[in-house]
Amino acid sequence: MRTQVAIVGAGPAGLLLGRLLERRGVDTIILERRSREHVLGRIRAGVLEQGTVDLLAAAGVDARLHAEGLVHEGIELCFDGDRRRIDFRALTGRSVTVYGQTEVTRDLMEARASSGARSIYDVEAVSLHDFDGERPRVRFVRDGVEHCVDCDFIAGCDGYHGVSRASVPAGALRSFERTYPFGWLGVLVERPPAAAELVYAHHERGFALCSMRSHQRSRYYVQVGAEEEVAAWPDQRFWDELRRRLDPETAAAVQTGPAIEKSIAPLRSFVAEPLRFGRLFLAGDAAHIVPPTGAKGLNLAASDVGCLAQALAEHYAERSSAGLDTYSDRVLQRVWKAERFSWWMTALLHVFPGTDTFGRRIQRAEFDYLAGSPAAQLVLAENYTGLPM
Amino acid sequence: MRTQVAIVGAGPAGLLLGRLLERRGVDTIILERRSREHVLGRIRAGVLEQGTVDLLAAAGVDARLHAEGLVHEGIELCFDGDRRRIDFRALTGRSVTVYGQTEVTRDLMEARASSGARSIYDVEAVSLHDFDGERPRVRFVRDGVEHCVDCDFIAGCDGYHGVSRASVPAGALRSFERTYPFGWLGVLVERPPAAAELVYAHHERGFALCSMRSHQRSRYYVQVGAEEEVAAWPDQRFWDELRRRLDPETAAAVQTGPAIEKSIAPLRSFVAEPLRFGRLFLAGDAAHIVPPTGAKGLNLAASDVGCLAQALAEHYAERSSAGLDTYSDRVLQRVWKAERFSWWMTALLHVFPGTDTFGRRIQRAEFDYLAGSPAAQLVLAENYTGLPM
Repeated sequence: MRTQVAIVGAGPAGLLLGRLLERRGVDTIILERRSREHVLGRIRAGVLEQGTVDLLAAAGVDARLHAEGLVHEGIELCFDGDRRRIDFRALTGRSVTVYGQTEVTRDLMEARASSGARSIYDVEAVSLHDFDGERPRVRFVRDGVEHCVDCDFIAGCDGYHGVSRASVPAGALRSFERTYPFGWLGVLVERPPAAAELVYAHHERGFALCSMRSHQRSRYYVQVGAEEEVAAWPDQRFWDELRRRLDPETAAAVQTGPAIEKSIAPLRSFVAEPLRFGRLFLAGDAAHIVPPTGAKGLNLAASDVGCLAQALAEHYAERSSAGLDTYSDRVLQRVWKAERFSWWMTALLHVFPGTDTFGRRIQRAEFDYLAGSPAAQLVLAENYTGLPM
Repeated sequence: MRTQVAIVGAGPAGLLLGRLLERRGVDTIILERRSREHVLGRIRAGVLEQGTVDLLAAAGVDARLHAEGLVHEGIELCFDGDRRRIDFRALTGRSVTVYGQTEVTRDLMEARASSGARSIYDVEAVSLHDFDGERPRVRFVRDGVEHCVDCDFIAGCDGYHGVSRASVPAGALRSFERTYPFGWLGVLVERPPAAAELVYAHHERGFALCSMRSHQRSRYYVQVGAEEEVAAWPDQRFWDELRRRLDPETAAAVQTGPAIEKSIAPLRSFVAEPLRFGRLFLAGDAAHIVPPTGAKGLNLAASDVGCLAQALAEHYAERSSAGLDTYSDRVLQRVWKAERFSWWMTALLHVFPGTDTFGRRIQRAEFDYLAGSPAAQLVLAENYTGLPM
């Protein structure tokens, strides 16, 4: 089979890229190792920058988002029980939209399905070939039969563990990485959220986050050790620990219930450079990972593919390679700023095992400074709501 | 002998405190272990916040400062050769004044000498007694003769290695400390400065700083290993290393000459808590140390003693202990913010041995973000020019 752009991975990055290209008249095939149901079952982030909302609008998949998404004009920071609101609207004129990544994925999948664009799920043994030449190919196996996609370009949107980045010859790629000595234990529960906005809490026992997916569904997190197991966290232990780390008012407002989903995610910072190898382009988690603290993962993936879609569309419309040639540098500029912000917010709010008492006081001083300085609040707000591309 | 406030240490903190108290009608005796000449020979910082200039004006010792000090409305940051100005005036409406600590000390010494207030230099075996009661005393030896100062209060302004903090009973004091695996090698030279404003440079070989004391006298620094010796740095090696770390334009403008002074200073962050023990009050370096990167050391000392002078004067004028009772908490709030800023600026601009490549890229991302964000520039500017008390 043949297409213009072969997209590896049907997560939000691959699906959004496919949809943006479809609207610019570029043909794509999406290949996904998992089933549709598996992809939709993954619980991920849920805070969209305005730029991401704009891209979803450009992709024509923003109707449900506008109907069901919750516009948030700020967040709450809580440090050892002292709470302070950061007013995004007043500081930057901007807001963010709370709408689960699962919902974004579902909207994109449905739009693609109804458009007739080709998506192939449950593929095995995906391999990328000849992307250093003019005629790249992607081979895969489905139901025991070998297939090959001939294409002009390959978009690697298959995440951190995907085959795309792993296909780049050793030596052509530099990677930068930091792992954190803790993870986030997350619980999804069918109960109204504890607060109208997200509450990010630092406590001497560790970080906690009160988040939500809707007015009825809440998502809570507590920092746990990197080696901990979900089995060690029955619901009651989770709720007790969460409440202990919050200010009294928020703690009292937490409505508990049976966990619909409970999982531990490790925290990692990772960047691969460059993002282009001949006719292969990396985007989203295939190229970079941020710890979830700054809510940047999905938003970075969206801005990557927004940039890539435009560059590819220009290539076909104008025979110009300018956008493709500068893709890697332009995207990496923004990626590194988001990596910095995510690292900073992680460093501010978590307890790092082994940190000296000076380091803990510096965290407190950072919170106190932030609480008193509109300039420092603006720095947080402009990063959280999204830096310009 | 008897006085109201015994001040231990004739550095700028002790001298400024003495002068501010004298003007409010409070009697002091200053005791100093070293000679006048030794104190004046110490080469230290040279950047004064507006709040420090205001305190020196209140102390009546700002005439020469206004005549000879250089008003700076910004600084230059340079990262691997890319230079960017931070415009304090445009961002905050404020500026800083370049005027050497040695000159501040000289002005204060001369004012005290002409006022007739008592200063006793070259004292030995200083010891602090009974500050947990109503009648504190300071004992010392001079020319082999034992003396005792009976007083109402003791101000410990005798620096990090002084006797004041060391006199506090173990267990009454908590300390927070971080040492850095490098020092600053500084050279003073009788040549015009390389640039009109201070240039702070990050380079892969390490930090460098172009500073000045006047239009004719420059002070340059390069980051060196913590264990290095001045003897290993003949002038030519210093100038070569300095120029290598600067952008080409600044490097070309460095006018070399024989070093008048050359020394290596370690970098340290340190805070002691609390700052009051009965009738003993700590101020300046006796209570806290910052790495010199943010130019905060002398300014913190000044704001400490400004606060302490007012509290003591109120005590005598109004029999109110309110200022004395809150001294420690109020001062520590500001100290910790300055510690945070000094740590941040040190972390941004130095090369830390053993830092992973991710960490180095985060430094670069911080510079790039700063270069492009007025909000981030304002954060730097409001801290550098001085947060409100």
